[in-house]
Amino acid sequence: MGHVVLFCAVYLVLLFFQTCFSISSVLQDQERDRISELPGQPVNVGFDQYSGYVTVNQTAGRALFYWLVGAPNTLGHKSRPLVLWLNGGPGCSSVAYGAAEEIGPFRIQPDGRTLDLNPYAWNKLANLLFLDSPAGVGFSYSNTTSDLYTAGDQRTGHYVPQLSQIIYERNKGIENPSINFKGFLVGNAVTDDYHDYVGTFEYWWTHGLISDTTYETLQAVCDYGSSEHPSEECEDAMDVADAELGNIDPYSIFTPVCNGSVSQRRHTKSRYIAPEKEMVLLYDRLNPLHIFVLSNRGDTDSVVPVTATRYSIDALNLSTVVNWYPWYENVKVGGWSQVYEGLTLVTVTGAGHEVPLHRPRQAFILFRSFLEGTPMPSKKQVM
Amino acid sequence: MGHVVLFCAVYLVLLFFQTCFSISSVLQDQERDRISELPGQPVNVGFDQYSGYVTVNQTAGRALFYWLVGAPNTLGHKSRPLVLWLNGGPGCSSVAYGAAEEIGPFRIQPDGRTLDLNPYAWNKLANLLFLDSPAGVGFSYSNTTSDLYTAGDQRTGHYVPQLSQIIYERNKGIENPSINFKGFLVGNAVTDDYHDYVGTFEYWWTHGLISDTTYETLQAVCDYGSSEHPSEECEDAMDVADAELGNIDPYSIFTPVCNGSVSQRRHTKSRYIAPEKEMVLLYDRLNPLHIFVLSNRGDTDSVVPVTATRYSIDALNLSTVVNWYPWYENVKVGGWSQVYEGLTLVTVTGAGHEVPLHRPRQAFILFRSFLEGTPMPSKKQVM
Repeated sequence: MGHVVLFCAVYLVLLFFQTCFSISSVLQDQERDRISELPGQPVNVGFDQYSGYVTVNQTAGRALFYWLVGAPNTLGHKSRPLVLWLNGGPGCSSVAYGAAEEIGPFRIQPDGRTLDLNPYAWNKLANLLFLDSPAGVGFSYSNTTSDLYTAGDQRTGHYVPQLSQIIYERNKGIENPSINFKGFLVGNAVTDDYHDYVGTFEYWWTHGLISDTTYETLQAVCDYGSSEHPSEECEDAMDVADAELGNIDPYSIFTPVCNGSVSQRRHTKSRYIAPEKEMVLLYDRLNPLHIFVLSNRGDTDSVVPVTATRYSIDALNLSTVVNWYPWYENVKVGGWSQVYEGLTLVTVTGAGHEVPLHRPRQAFILFRSFLEGTPMPSKKQVM
Repeated sequence: MGHVVLFCAVYLVLLFFQTCFSISSVLQDQERDRISELPGQPVNVGFDQYSGYVTVNQTAGRALFYWLVGAPNTLGHKSRPLVLWLNGGPGCSSVAYGAAEEIGPFRIQPDGRTLDLNPYAWNKLANLLFLDSPAGVGFSYSNTTSDLYTAGDQRTGHYVPQLSQIIYERNKGIENPSINFKGFLVGNAVTDDYHDYVGTFEYWWTHGLISDTTYETLQAVCDYGSSEHPSEECEDAMDVADAELGNIDPYSIFTPVCNGSVSQRRHTKSRYIAPEKEMVLLYDRLNPLHIFVLSNRGDTDSVVPVTATRYSIDALNLSTVVNWYPWYENVKVGGWSQVYEGLTLVTVTGAGHEVPLHRPRQAFILFRSFLEGTPMPSKKQVM
């Protein structure tokens, strides 16, 4: 691999954001961007790393920070695919979450100064490009006041499938497209307000987190509303639900809360912006083309719960290729999966919102199946 | 305390089974039944133990095994209440499960030879009487062929509330009844087939354990059926659900399966016998009398899940005294609770079917609140 593929990926990201950029700043700075080693990292890790800034809008002084982690040279990094990793929110740093907590090559040790190798790092299977986006997130910045962030908040809510759609559309009719695009993987993806609300409220009630009356109220005042502009009644009902949920980590309901408080407002406003059915329609448009899709779900995540995804996928009316079945991590059930025409749903048992943080081994198997284009292993096997 | 109270409890159990018995065999054998110490137990535990057999039917040669564990002498065992502990199934030994795994004074060490003290043993709060019942379970036996077990299978399905009802009825109109009966505590109680089916199937689907089609089929062919005599269609649907659930522990869905297989038939036939609405009506009869009831629920139990209990309690149409709220174990959410008129529902977060096994500290707090007749602690407090 090299910066040619990296360049293409960044090029497409930037097209997506519809901004100007300078090609030369990427190509000429290749060696300047090389990381010899990170502070506290083990020696001789056997893979290349690059990091730096890509200016996406000279006038506005906007630049995005990236960290490229190659696959180990011994594992044939040149033949490995490139995976662009974008954390959601939007507003979460891909470096701080995806790389540092979830799938990156290193784990930060409790001393806060040294790094250990992550045994389930995804760069063992692919070259990974972590990008902090939009500008303002993580190490990415903007030097001018700009409405990009606000606008971005609305437009980038579902940027992984939307970016995929752009790549797919641009590949149409080209015999050897510069990016051999095969599919995409989304985790904990909010698809549309309606199915998300229905599934989330049902999850809260069936997991014993809210009262009967609050469940009824939420259904009555929020189900058909917008998460971006909720009604006053819906906001009030969400407040009651928040109080009933108590001091738990909603992203991983069985994880002990360490700092004694996670009482930030959790269920409105900070969500993805997801106009009703828009994303469902997008998946539908991509689907007849047999693009491979994986949706990994932590089944103890109460913020974007498995029930919401089930309702959203149900709305697509896809044909089933392989019905619901438990998949195995060695001899243990790692989660459940259903293969639809062009879309595979995978759940990971016992994991919270950040699946690779809670269940790195299961997430690694999931990623391997995704790259290989195969269903999750249905038989007990030794990895 | 002494054998007078024990005698009364056993007397009532026997009345419930409608068998004959000999009073003298209980009273005269008091000292013979005293346990000086169990093999491998710590020395000077500071509480009394008795164990032995009570003949319940001389002709049939039926005898029930009991183990009485007193509260520590330093904690005023004489003023502590007596709690009769019966494990469900029916067919599970109260000694093997309740005492050895859940709430008893000792924990069996991994060497299989020594016992450690259980820091959350419930005998710190009450005198505990573990009874293996019916005959044939645990150390209890019957010397003759008898239809008791089959009959018992039908009649003892809900024996804790039914026994409570008998005690309550016999206390009526008596100024100083020999047993000062205050209430009862049931855990993971199947109440009636209909609400149990509706709630269990919903739990399986919302927890990502079964397919959409199986969920629909179960609702269509099982919801209004009997768990004792399921239809062929319902049995078939249960088989499909079993295969989809995979090799997990259904009593605690996040607990690793150690022996590699728990593939016994789990969802039919071995259930409590629970004629539709019968138990709901019984709770309703007991309820206007302000008998205190606690139902503790492990919220990762897929066999008798929290959704089933919520539907059953909803069918009672009880008035709410304190609405759904998170209760606290120190600063952590221990679970959720709702106080109805005469009935308190308590869930324990992260626990499987055997709540005190998985969450001994939370179960201990629950038991303390039950004995004190107070709601679960709503504030963060140090225990």
